[in-house]
Amino acid sequence: MACCGNNFCCQCCCREGETRTPEELTILGETRDEEDEILPRKDYESLDYDRCISEPYVEDLEGMDNKKAKKYEAVRWIMVFTIGVTIGLVGLFVDFFVHLFTKLKFTLVGDSIEKCSDKGCLPLSLLELLAFNMTFVFIASVLVLIEPVAAGSGIPEIKSYLNGVKIPGIVRLRTFLCKAGGVLFSVAGGLFVGKEGPLIHSGAIVGAGLPQFQSITFKRIKLDFPYFRSDRDKRDFVSAGAAAGVAAAFGAPIGGTLFSLEEGSSFWNQALTWKVLFCSMSATFTLNFFRSGINFNKWGSFQLPGLLNFGEFKCLNGDKNCHLWTAVDLAFFVLMGVVGGLLGALFNCMNKNLAKYRIRHIHPKAKFIRVLESLLVVMVTTVVIFVASMLLGECRDLSSPTTHNNTLSGNEDINSTIRQYFCTNKTYNDMATLFFNPQEAAIHQLFHQDGTFSPVTLSVFFLLYFLLACWTYGVSVPSGLFVPSLLCGAAFGRLVANILKVKMGMNVYSGTYALIGAAAFLGGVVRMTISLTVILIESTNEITYGLPIMITLMVAKWTGDFFNKGIYDIHIQLRGVPLLEWETELEMDKLTASDIMEPNLTYVYPHTRVQSLVSILRTTVYHSFPVVTENRQNERDFMKGNILVSNNIRFKKSSVVSRAGEQRRRCQSMKSYPSSELRNVCDEQNAIVEPAEEGEDLLQQMLERRHAPYPNLYPDQSPSEEWTMEERFRPLTFHGLILRSQLVNLLIRGVCYAENQSSATQPRLSYAEMTEDYPRYPDIHDLDLTLLNPRMIVDVTPYMNPCPYTVSPNTRISQVFNLFRTMGLRHLPVVNAVGEIVGIITRHNLTHEFLVAKLRQHYITI
Amino acid sequence: MACCGNNFCCQCCCREGETRTPEELTILGETRDEEDEILPRKDYESLDYDRCISEPYVEDLEGMDNKKAKKYEAVRWIMVFTIGVTIGLVGLFVDFFVHLFTKLKFTLVGDSIEKCSDKGCLPLSLLELLAFNMTFVFIASVLVLIEPVAAGSGIPEIKSYLNGVKIPGIVRLRTFLCKAGGVLFSVAGGLFVGKEGPLIHSGAIVGAGLPQFQSITFKRIKLDFPYFRSDRDKRDFVSAGAAAGVAAAFGAPIGGTLFSLEEGSSFWNQALTWKVLFCSMSATFTLNFFRSGINFNKWGSFQLPGLLNFGEFKCLNGDKNCHLWTAVDLAFFVLMGVVGGLLGALFNCMNKNLAKYRIRHIHPKAKFIRVLESLLVVMVTTVVIFVASMLLGECRDLSSPTTHNNTLSGNEDINSTIRQYFCTNKTYNDMATLFFNPQEAAIHQLFHQDGTFSPVTLSVFFLLYFLLACWTYGVSVPSGLFVPSLLCGAAFGRLVANILKVKMGMNVYSGTYALIGAAAFLGGVVRMTISLTVILIESTNEITYGLPIMITLMVAKWTGDFFNKGIYDIHIQLRGVPLLEWETELEMDKLTASDIMEPNLTYVYPHTRVQSLVSILRTTVYHSFPVVTENRQNERDFMKGNILVSNNIRFKKSSVVSRAGEQRRRCQSMKSYPSSELRNVCDEQNAIVEPAEEGEDLLQQMLERRHAPYPNLYPDQSPSEEWTMEERFRPLTFHGLILRSQLVNLLIRGVCYAENQSSATQPRLSYAEMTEDYPRYPDIHDLDLTLLNPRMIVDVTPYMNPCPYTVSPNTRISQVFNLFRTMGLRHLPVVNAVGEIVGIITRHNLTHEFLVAKLRQHYITI
Repeated sequence: MACCGNNFCCQCCCREGETRTPEELTILGETRDEEDEILPRKDYESLDYDRCISEPYVEDLEGMDNKKAKKYEAVRWIMVFTIGVTIGLVGLFVDFFVHLFTKLKFTLVGDSIEKCSDKGCLPLSLLELLAFNMTFVFIASVLVLIEPVAAGSGIPEIKSYLNGVKIPGIVRLRTFLCKAGGVLFSVAGGLFVGKEGPLIHSGAIVGAGLPQFQSITFKRIKLDFPYFRSDRDKRDFVSAGAAAGVAAAFGAPIGGTLFSLEEGSSFWNQALTWKVLFCSMSATFTLNFFRSGINFNKWGSFQLPGLLNFGEFKCLNGDKNCHLWTAVDLAFFVLMGVVGGLLGALFNCMNKNLAKYRIRHIHPKAKFIRVLESLLVVMVTTVVIFVASMLLGECRDLSSPTTHNNTLSGNEDINSTIRQYFCTNKTYNDMATLFFNPQEAAIHQLFHQDGTFSPVTLSVFFLLYFLLACWTYGVSVPSGLFVPSLLCGAAFGRLVANILKVKMGMNVYSGTYALIGAAAFLGGVVRMTISLTVILIESTNEITYGLPIMITLMVAKWTGDFFNKGIYDIHIQLRGVPLLEWETELEMDKLTASDIMEPNLTYVYPHTRVQSLVSILRTTVYHSFPVVTENRQNERDFMKGNILVSNNIRFKKSSVVSRAGEQRRRCQSMKSYPSSELRNVCDEQNAIVEPAEEGEDLLQQMLERRHAPYPNLYPDQSPSEEWTMEERFRPLTFHGLILRSQLVNLLIRGVCYAENQSSATQPRLSYAEMTEDYPRYPDIHDLDLTLLNPRMIVDVTPYMNPCPYTVSPNTRISQVFNLFRTMGLRHLPVVNAVGEIVGIITRHNLTHEFLVAKLRQHYITI
Repeated sequence: MACCGNNFCCQCCCREGETRTPEELTILGETRDEEDEILPRKDYESLDYDRCISEPYVEDLEGMDNKKAKKYEAVRWIMVFTIGVTIGLVGLFVDFFVHLFTKLKFTLVGDSIEKCSDKGCLPLSLLELLAFNMTFVFIASVLVLIEPVAAGSGIPEIKSYLNGVKIPGIVRLRTFLCKAGGVLFSVAGGLFVGKEGPLIHSGAIVGAGLPQFQSITFKRIKLDFPYFRSDRDKRDFVSAGAAAGVAAAFGAPIGGTLFSLEEGSSFWNQALTWKVLFCSMSATFTLNFFRSGINFNKWGSFQLPGLLNFGEFKCLNGDKNCHLWTAVDLAFFVLMGVVGGLLGALFNCMNKNLAKYRIRHIHPKAKFIRVLESLLVVMVTTVVIFVASMLLGECRDLSSPTTHNNTLSGNEDINSTIRQYFCTNKTYNDMATLFFNPQEAAIHQLFHQDGTFSPVTLSVFFLLYFLLACWTYGVSVPSGLFVPSLLCGAAFGRLVANILKVKMGMNVYSGTYALIGAAAFLGGVVRMTISLTVILIESTNEITYGLPIMITLMVAKWTGDFFNKGIYDIHIQLRGVPLLEWETELEMDKLTASDIMEPNLTYVYPHTRVQSLVSILRTTVYHSFPVVTENRQNERDFMKGNILVSNNIRFKKSSVVSRAGEQRRRCQSMKSYPSSELRNVCDEQNAIVEPAEEGEDLLQQMLERRHAPYPNLYPDQSPSEEWTMEERFRPLTFHGLILRSQLVNLLIRGVCYAENQSSATQPRLSYAEMTEDYPRYPDIHDLDLTLLNPRMIVDVTPYMNPCPYTVSPNTRISQVFNLFRTMGLRHLPVVNAVGEIVGIITRHNLTHEFLVAKLRQHYITI
């Protein structure tokens, strides 16, 4: 592959779109034919979760006593609390304005309808409703134009981020403002969207942004607060923020914590989980406190846990024969799970094709086209609900529901949201009751209203909602998917309950069936497991629903997985994010690390000239470089001639820890102990120090004697295209990894020494100086390095990560994958049995698509 | 340390008690002076969670298609379901008999008291009660004599097991029978113990045992079911079982799952967690189904979730001013958390000293002494509750509670458990109501009875319970700690509520205070975090209690941690289990892997003679041996003379993957592709194959040229005590790890080849054959190996783990620790920059005590 040249080097982490080499294309199969297939793109970088412990950090460490560590820990606790409270307030803000706008809209339009029903000016009412909805959606759409990543639910993005992929702009303040502002208007605008997903995204941004005390959107916001400036800390806070978002949205702090764990993927870190749970609790209870205070004027009580509340499921006090569910119902729940899974798969399939159509035909066009699409969607939606309520709604007797009503745990009585539009007095319109209400109220109606909806209404409602929600998700406004799915599923469940009650004469509790239907459809669409189970259990506040919800979700997921992926995974795939799954398939273990690694390496030496570094940085796009030394025979000769070479050789020698040397060191330190028995041991040891030192000498000899087939190559030569294969692939001993950002930083700050000086004269940077520019380090191409003497030498050893996790070339893929994903790595060097680096594995080498292609290649070869 | 000889080699994983070398004793400080300090013992082994992928497994893998993998997965699901149902039934069994015995006892004794109150024959009633209690406790105690590990709550043992420590006998069928049978009698015997801890332990045993389909206790039980015979699978099932135990005990499936995660410590494995949750749900609902059926005769309804149920906390329907808690109460909850933490710390401190006393003075004596202690405890307990009820109970008006009673969600009305002993008609004895009832009923009384207990009664009850529970925990009967702690804490919380109501005239909800008091005390004693929060929330079935419970537990933990550890950790420490904490302290990062590793290695060669293997296995106690080759210069000479040496050298050469070779291999496989562009690339590649092969040759030369300072040592020589230091510590290239059990297995099955044959003639073992004897592999000392020809050669390479995770000697402790704990390793080789092994790290090198000692040494040295 030597001939692939620079193009090939570009493979690992290119920035420029989809640069693919011929080899890759071949490996990846007939991708040009299957145009449908969207492959992981190379322009997403990994986050660096592994703590890179290099010298500057250790220097800080020396001053790190337990007191300082405790202070640091306390700051973290304060931080998560602040994040939780902030997210609670954000939820409150969104909820308050959605409530306000929706109330305003429905009151005015409602009055108009009631007047016009008599006067016959209903088209005027429709126009009024249209005006409201289109204005709101227009605002939402414009906000998304300002920051395009604010579109959609944000859960795919957060999932990717927590998986370890850096998506540009996803946690910026501007995104937050557009998202939180936009969702308010898109929900108020009557689109079939929820505010839960965007709230989770907003929470993640708050988590990422607050502890930084700086903003890239508003450059002025920059406080001197040098904590938490690393990918690791940021990702931890983002998971706390996302969890708090879930907690605020559903009043489900435990579910939120499990959500961030399920998506966060890293090893189970008790201290972090505990903080995440605290953050979630803070968010829920902040929201609860203020909402209870505002709505009931009872400050200090806690009665409204989340934005979405399912109300209390309970039998009437007197009824002894009433059960929420019995063992017999379980069989129906399983069937509903299957149907929910099928419906979800259909929904996902339709939405996927729609999204592909959008990518191909709408996104390339001018941006205002997207605004027009949003307006079209809201127009159709508005007209449909108006016409459906008018023509298809059934007028039912008002007295029947009031006798059977259940008390609601929430504020509003369930009968206050019944709509009488288009019906004569004493009757109400069941379709309008579902459509002319906020979605939460409609869910309450379906869960708790007894015997109110005709099967026809439910079927029509389900069908319309299904189609419109499917069309809406993907339009360029902030839009959640939870509530529409729940509503859609609840209608389905209610329909099943109606049929069972009326046709089969069974005594079932309709609310439970509506809930199970909602769970089945939602499970079929999003395919989440543990966290969704817990979120739903917490939302119902009824532990006995655990088993039916879990079984339904499980069946729905299995059924759906038979056809396609969950909606979030589909959208992640469409964006080409290189997401890592939970584990690899067993079959992949036929491959080893050496099959998938990237063998073309660009490397640096421990001591390198400025000119080489600059040329390496300018001609490659790798984000990390292995620090290596060469194995050459007559190093002694080199040492005499060239200071640079001799420094490198000296470093290599000092870096090889031998067993004998280690043993001697231990014995030395042992001598400080007074034990007489021990002194004997060490005296004996001393007696043989002489030959041992000879042994050390032998070790040196061994290192020096290693062959040097390319004596013409000096360590300060950067790799060139004219090299022959043996020059390119000569053996190199691995010593550590250094990041691009670190090298650039060293160059900017002029960390180097002159040829005639010792490397000790090189200035040293502190940890704070190294991370000052986080998270956006300057680009090498933007720098003016003319002031630097190109002949100066940079000693990178104090700044490199001297001991990253490594694997041997024969390691099975499952093991490599496990290590990479669990430890949240960004680069994983492959090192052979004699310590030479043979390749590097990055996230892109572990994506499902890449592995499948490699496995196919493996089968062809054997 | 060469002189320490065999004694030193023994260090890693000795079986014979506390063998300590002088070095260790010095390192570990003045341990002989501080007699109190109990150090981690060396006779506990680690579990092997890392999947050791050696060739036989890979062979199986070749036949492993996706269909087979799915079948395997389905078996797992069936397994966890079976485990869940079984644990539910076990819970049912225990509950049923406890209920039966307790009812029998209290009915008979109650009748007797009521009769005797008039006749004045109360001592007779006391004797009757004594007879019951002592009989029951005697049975429990005898059962524990049969299997001593069945004593106590079992949570420390399960925690250790999930942490990765093998404790002998802990998951055996005999232990299960003694534990489940014993706890039934110890609870029925009126001791202040709970049945929750033992139920969790029983669950873990069911999880470990069921999927094995064999029993060591009953040798006859052995089905041919070759799945899941590995530490990894077993540990996964144990975590499912433990979670199901929690779920059955508290009706808290989510809490159970989090419990097993919190203690299970491994990386977050979604598939496993999902199964664990399912298992927990199965257990809860099996129990619920049968209990609802038996108690209410309503089969198919689900109304009694767990064995311990807190009942429903709710305000009376009419009362609008009643809140379960308000923001003002939170301040009191924090204070109660502090007090709970202090009380818990006191409890733990007293219990620790008691346990130490028992270890020193009771355990060495004859076993029946333990039975006598149990009988003494139950005697004192019985007399105390009888006398306290008689003399200190307050007779209160019976009418007051009935007016204010709350409806209970459970079966029995709360007033049915009120006791009128020793009181005149129309009044009842509040002390007797607490003492002469099953503990669950007493908890219900404290949580839900309104205004019933006098402050004096509550104080006396708290004090007596505190002291007696502290004395009881550690007695040799199966005994849980949850319920006594809850009861104790609830009394304290109720007392606080009483004081606030009466003295300060505040309008508080007593039940909430009782609950928070219970949480505070329990948190102070056990110091669990997330899982305990969730368990308590689920037990109350009231999501709004989340924040107060969490804050109370957090404060209680922090306060308690200021003084000592949690009770379970204390007992783990007293047993000397080498538990690994969540993470190391930041300070430990001043040490590196080379500081803590064990540098004295016993190793094997890829090809070794039977006689060497036998002698190595017989003279050492290590559980794993690195497979190494030597770095010698004139290997070519050796190759000619000795088939064994030449085989080893050949293996070494073939095992070194070079970049150039790797590149060539890729290019070869690329040629099978038709792409024309690619063909060019590979043609060019072909053109330079010649020099590249020369390069390969150079690589061989390099390997051969490595120095050989000890030409007199043949690879089949086992290490001897006469070796000099340079002989002992000569450089060795690391190739893999092989377990003792594997080596023994190879010897038993005669896997070896004759000197004049090729190593390919060696018989091959399948994966099933390798794991047949799991979990107890035969001991080398029990084997008769006379039939084996000692000159035969064993090729261990197909069976070793060729690519375990390794670290470099400079790796910081936090990183080593993280890798070791997260991946569940047993041995972690330390390999230097040129691929030579310099040491091995095991669990014992990472215990807190060892690290502290090493850090102290580090400070002394610098």
